[in-house]
Amino acid sequence: MSRKRGFEQNPVVGVIMGSDSDLEIMQHSAIKLEKFEVPHEVRVISAHRTPDKAVKYGRTAVRRGLQVIIAGAGGSAHLPGKVAPYTRVPVLGVALGNTPKSIEAAIGSIDEMPEGVPVPLAGINKKGAVNAALESIRILALLNPVYAEAYEQFVQEMAEEVEAKDEAIRIKGYKVYLRDQRLTEELKQSG
Amino acid sequence: MSRKRGFEQNPVVGVIMGSDSDLEIMQHSAIKLEKFEVPHEVRVISAHRTPDKAVKYGRTAVRRGLQVIIAGAGGSAHLPGKVAPYTRVPVLGVALGNTPKSIEAAIGSIDEMPEGVPVPLAGINKKGAVNAALESIRILALLNPVYAEAYEQFVQEMAEEVEAKDEAIRIKGYKVYLRDQRLTEELKQSG
Amino acid sequence: MSRKRGFEQNPVVGVIMGSDSDLEIMQHSAIKLEKFEVPHEVRVISAHRTPDKAVKYGRTAVRRGLQVIIAGAGGSAHLPGKVAPYTRVPVLGVALGNTPKSIEAAIGSIDEMPEGVPVPLAGINKKGAVNAALESIRILALLNPVYAEAYEQFVQEMAEEVEAKDEAIRIKGYKVYLRDQRLTEELKQSG
Amino acid sequence: MSRKRGFEQNPVVGVIMGSDSDLEIMQHSAIKLEKFEVPHEVRVISAHRTPDKAVKYGRTAVRRGLQVIIAGAGGSAHLPGKVAPYTRVPVLGVALGNTPKSIEAAIGSIDEMPEGVPVPLAGINKKGAVNAALESIRILALLNPVYAEAYEQFVQEMAEEVEAKDEAIRIKGYKVYLRDQRLTEELKQSG
Amino acid sequence: MSRKRGFEQNPVVGVIMGSDSDLEIMQHSAIKLEKFEVPHEVRVISAHRTPDKAVKYGRTAVRRGLQVIIAGAGGSAHLPGKVAPYTRVPVLGVALGNTPKSIEAAIGSIDEMPEGVPVPLAGINKKGAVNAALESIRILALLNPVYAEAYEQFVQEMAEEVEAKDEAIRIKGYKVYLRDQRLTEELKQSG
Amino acid sequence: MSRKRGFEQNPVVGVIMGSDSDLEIMQHSAIKLEKFEVPHEVRVISAHRTPDKAVKYGRTAVRRGLQVIIAGAGGSAHLPGKVAPYTRVPVLGVALGNTPKSIEAAIGSIDEMPEGVPVPLAGINKKGAVNAALESIRILALLNPVYAEAYEQFVQEMAEEVEAKDEAIRIKGYKVYLRDQRLTEELKQSG
Amino acid sequence: MSRKRGFEQNPVVGVIMGSDSDLEIMQHSAIKLEKFEVPHEVRVISAHRTPDKAVKYGRTAVRRGLQVIIAGAGGSAHLPGKVAPYTRVPVLGVALGNTPKSIEAAIGSIDEMPEGVPVPLAGINKKGAVNAALESIRILALLNPVYAEAYEQFVQEMAEEVEAKDEAIRIKGYKVYLRDQRLTEELKQSG
Amino acid sequence: MSRKRGFEQNPVVGVIMGSDSDLEIMQHSAIKLEKFEVPHEVRVISAHRTPDKAVKYGRTAVRRGLQVIIAGAGGSAHLPGKVAPYTRVPVLGVALGNTPKSIEAAIGSIDEMPEGVPVPLAGINKKGAVNAALESIRILALLNPVYAEAYEQFVQEMAEEVEAKDEAIRIKGYKVYLRDQRLTEELKQSG
Repeated sequence: MSRKRGFEQNPVVGVIMGSDSDLEIMQHSAIKLEKFEVPHEVRVISAHRTPDKAVKYGRTAVRRGLQVIIAGAGGSAHLPGKVAPYTRVPVLGVALGNTPKSIEAAIGSIDEMPEGVPVPLAGINKKGAVNAALESIRILALLNPVYAEAYEQFVQEMAEEVEAKDEAIRIKGYKVYLRDQRLTEELKQSG
Repeated sequence: MSRKRGFEQNPVVGVIMGSDSDLEIMQHSAIKLEKFEVPHEVRVISAHRTPDKAVKYGRTAVRRGLQVIIAGAGGSAHLPGKVAPYTRVPVLGVALGNTPKSIEAAIGSIDEMPEGVPVPLAGINKKGAVNAALESIRILALLNPVYAEAYEQFVQEMAEEVEAKDEAIRIKGYKVYLRDQRLTEELKQSG
Repeated sequence: MSRKRGFEQNPVVGVIMGSDSDLEIMQHSAIKLEKFEVPHEVRVISAHRTPDKAVKYGRTAVRRGLQVIIAGAGGSAHLPGKVAPYTRVPVLGVALGNTPKSIEAAIGSIDEMPEGVPVPLAGINKKGAVNAALESIRILALLNPVYAEAYEQFVQEMAEEVEAKDEAIRIKGYKVYLRDQRLTEELKQSG
Repeated sequence: MSRKRGFEQNPVVGVIMGSDSDLEIMQHSAIKLEKFEVPHEVRVISAHRTPDKAVKYGRTAVRRGLQVIIAGAGGSAHLPGKVAPYTRVPVLGVALGNTPKSIEAAIGSIDEMPEGVPVPLAGINKKGAVNAALESIRILALLNPVYAEAYEQFVQEMAEEVEAKDEAIRIKGYKVYLRDQRLTEELKQSG
Repeated sequence: MSRKRGFEQNPVVGVIMGSDSDLEIMQHSAIKLEKFEVPHEVRVISAHRTPDKAVKYGRTAVRRGLQVIIAGAGGSAHLPGKVAPYTRVPVLGVALGNTPKSIEAAIGSIDEMPEGVPVPLAGINKKGAVNAALESIRILALLNPVYAEAYEQFVQEMAEEVEAKDEAIRIKGYKVYLRDQRLTEELKQSG
Repeated sequence: MSRKRGFEQNPVVGVIMGSDSDLEIMQHSAIKLEKFEVPHEVRVISAHRTPDKAVKYGRTAVRRGLQVIIAGAGGSAHLPGKVAPYTRVPVLGVALGNTPKSIEAAIGSIDEMPEGVPVPLAGINKKGAVNAALESIRILALLNPVYAEAYEQFVQEMAEEVEAKDEAIRIKGYKVYLRDQRLTEELKQSG
Repeated sequence: MSRKRGFEQNPVVGVIMGSDSDLEIMQHSAIKLEKFEVPHEVRVISAHRTPDKAVKYGRTAVRRGLQVIIAGAGGSAHLPGKVAPYTRVPVLGVALGNTPKSIEAAIGSIDEMPEGVPVPLAGINKKGAVNAALESIRILALLNPVYAEAYEQFVQEMAEEVEAKDEAIRIKGYKVYLRDQRLTEELKQSG
Repeated sequence: MSRKRGFEQNPVVGVIMGSDSDLEIMQHSAIKLEKFEVPHEVRVISAHRTPDKAVKYGRTAVRRGLQVIIAGAGGSAHLPGKVAPYTRVPVLGVALGNTPKSIEAAIGSIDEMPEGVPVPLAGINKKGAVNAALESIRILALLNPVYAEAYEQFVQEMAEEVEAKDEAIRIKGYKVYLRDQRLTEELKQSG
């Protein structure tokens, strides 16, 4: 059973955001989905500037075969809650913002959704975008063993990566480790 | 020129809220509008449970003759921002909540609306509901001198009320004043 | 196709919490799951007092047939993040607390999970417990059309309930509506 | 019917702020008003350093033909609340600040105005300055169909702008889109 | 040298507040001033409802012989900052509020006063009202040795009071001490 | 080796607080220490009202044989940081408060201690008081195997208690469990 | 009557701070005091690293002729509350910090001082340092008409400065004004 | 009695963190421990990516001779609370973060640990890392007089350092002192 189903043609995950200024962050959902070979689409749909389109996106989600919607939104962050009432597809919110105030607003706008219309908050900014994608894989893994296996391998790799770092610090000592890190970064920047 | 135009038949101000549990607070908008004899309506319209109705309410606002919409909302508080994109009628938000967290969320959801779709926040809970009504009068006063005059008289009365209290404290002393206040309250409760 | 599969025998949703003092709130997940006839279990498992059991719960989740884990936690709220690394089953967090400080801590402990280990925050206290259950149904609906249909009917009923209230306020006026509400509540309490 | 009435000669909107250091942000109110050809004035009036002038500004607002006052203020942010008691002209507050603490203070100073003296908070910093101007247009549109039409056209244009971006991402893919964005920005900066 | 100068006839400290609902708290300034036999007055003056009176209060403060003004204010809390620009008499702010939000707003409105117009925040609610009075005594003690002596005696008495409690707990043990405290409180309430 | 060394005669843990109003909470440190048979003392020592005594308490701590100082403090919460500079004995802070504002202040006053003078924050209110005592046992267990053993037994008992509750809910079902809890509580209150 | 009394020889205002890293901010108190020709001293005294010196500073303040103490402190910010119990001289706190967290902590540590030991918070960072100095002048003006006169002149000058800016914007228009501001700043930097 | 016991061979303090990105901050614990010649180890152990290792680290701590564990963690910050249930060795938490939100989350995740599992919060970022090390010395000093003596000497040196700065400012004046500081910094940077 292959996970490849033609990218962005028959997307099963929709990554949406209210503005193209959110794309820099929200691309991390797409990158992760791509890594897991999940067919997905990336869309700019504003709850406030293109409200009809947001309504339509929700209404057609089931019919279009979407199985998860990841909605990134900042500030008043209505997008996830705008789309969710129109579909039974799970909608995961990602709170975006570059000031404490706008992040808090986005979190509150998502995690205080009223009883009856769930929009789980997958996290904040890049970390949230990545974790929203990973949560999608967890959901898709219920449907498709290929994703289940891929996810478990991903977990294994994460552990190994941390182990390797711990090992390196133990062997080199933390001072050499930090110096090497700085050298690597300098090389990358002068790159 | 009379302000009386048949209440709730040709409303010029719409007082809307997402749930009938908000009515206890939001009635204070209506009570104030009634005091100023402003034709108004009180509606329960949920951004998340009756989203189509919210869209329709915005879309028909101009046609129905509304001149201000007061939208009370708590928690994720999307209602004002749900309606505003569909109309050019001024929409005033009132943030509702009974926990610090839900109030903060409601404030953030309103005062962080994106550039292009204004929803001024008239205030919080009862104070906000009253001030949203008063702001409506300020707006209507631009159109109708009867409201302008009534508003100025209201301001005058507020000042006189405060003056009377200051006078009473000066004459009685604050101790007697406080004792009298407590007696009055006890009488009211045993009422 | 029937949804009835023998309650709590072959649970597909696990509702877990760190202390029996969380049960008063977390029962609302169970009540909602029951309403949708989703086989589920309710467990008290502490991340800090019975850490091995929490590890085991995560580790055996797939094998035991769980498809969603709802983890309610307050204060430091480590439970969802304690279980999630041991399973690929979606884990939904519910932040619990009875002070602003403890709620904020619980939210932060969940929505700031590190990149790689997603634990979406379904919401706060009772609202969160209910919405975590509803999100579970949305996920299960991807697997089972019976849940899909039931969910859509639920959405329809919510809308009708709000409509009925709006209608009642329009007909009775808000003053009579509020008076009736108060009478009903008094009857219930003296009941 | 023309909107042109001689700029800053017979202003209908007053844009005021407490310090010329607020001008960098508050100019965005003026720029938007200019775009809509609304006669307006820009003034530096301090609630604390030129208190008498602030009083006078409020007192003469009706007589001078002002129909909306936009007051930007940071920190203790008393200016909107300083002017509002002296006039029945709608006063919209814009909260300014460059630290979380000073922004929070400004928001609180505006959205906690006492019952009886409404000062709706139009938003925060640049976003707030723009939205205060747009809210002014919504109010003026009640008086003048030219503004009503212009506002509706503005809403239409915003939607088209978002649509164009969504289209571009769909066609180019988000990676090319982001790369192009970065190139454009680099060109602008080296420009 | 006697401190008695005829109470409230030639007040040297003015205790002002925006509403008589603040009196329950602000009386604690007056009670403390009375204990130190400082001539003082208690006034209700609203920054927003009786703005002219607030201006006049500031303007005449020096002439009337006031040496400290204690201004209690809640929510937007503009009163101290309303009065301070009109006088060189030290103005001490007391932040009032019965919700976290309104207290935060009051604090921010006072402690973020702009450079040039100082309004030190003496504290919050009852504790603030008492400490504002004590700070007044510290200031008056610079002018009058009678207050200096009285203040030093007060400090001594506070220390002795704490010492006595520590002693009692050491002798009785904390369990008996707590039991006695509860008994005393019960007696007072049934009193 | 016995842990019994004559209570409050040769205390090894000092439980101090700034006011006897903190005793209701801080007694929970003492109760826990007593359960583990740790010699301890309970003292009221104010950083601000009996500052010299606080200095002396710190200065004599080593000489008096104290091995841990638990300092509970609310609001400005200076007590732990008042004592710590005068001794090398570990000082654990407990943040006390009954409003969000006063708790936040107490936390900040402790966890922001400057580099060089550590005062770890053991937690907030009752939970903090208990955990400060338990942390003391962890420290004492480094010195005395009796405490080490007792602590490990305590951990075991905690786990068993949680297990028992989980078992009860599994057997009775959560509904019966909750009903029984309520009955037990009612009995206790009518008790 | 001359204000000149030999700087830093017989200081009447003490400007103290816990670390020389606070000097960059706290110098603004000294600069303002110098402008008003108030004899003052600048000292680094740590509540936690040189606690005995802090005690001594408080104890000798009256004897040394100090009439106001300005204490700047960041983070746990105990310095003002460390000194205040040892003297009846008014102590004004200035909250310092370069992160939201450390500023909040400093504010809380000062504005939550217990009943009985007042330390008014003069403000935050530079603004607070300046306003603490100005509040000192207000206090000193009660003792010395030279300061009274100087303060009133200062208030007058502030007003004129704001007036001049308002005038310039009215004449040039805000666009030219902003351009000129930017040019001036560029000149200063390349200067 | 010598403190030297072979570094990192028989560590008595374990400095652990969830990611090597925390090392830049957490090295300050190690640097301080090294200064006091405390045998210690530095490890990267993730509560979420290498959960089994975290469990094992806790479980073997006593056996391996650890006497204090310093656990630095950011965001959801579960590491200290992950390890603590598996050991009776004192665990000190250090809250890490580079945004207000992530720091608040880390603080809450640590200081809200449930009753029964203490994890004192040693502080935030660098300051916290240093103070966690110093608290470790305070604990080790109970066991080993060499550490006790070294700690007291450290306290003495800190005081002298502050004294020297105060002296320098008194002699040079603050202006020269600040100028010299800037020169020194410029020299260091051009280095």
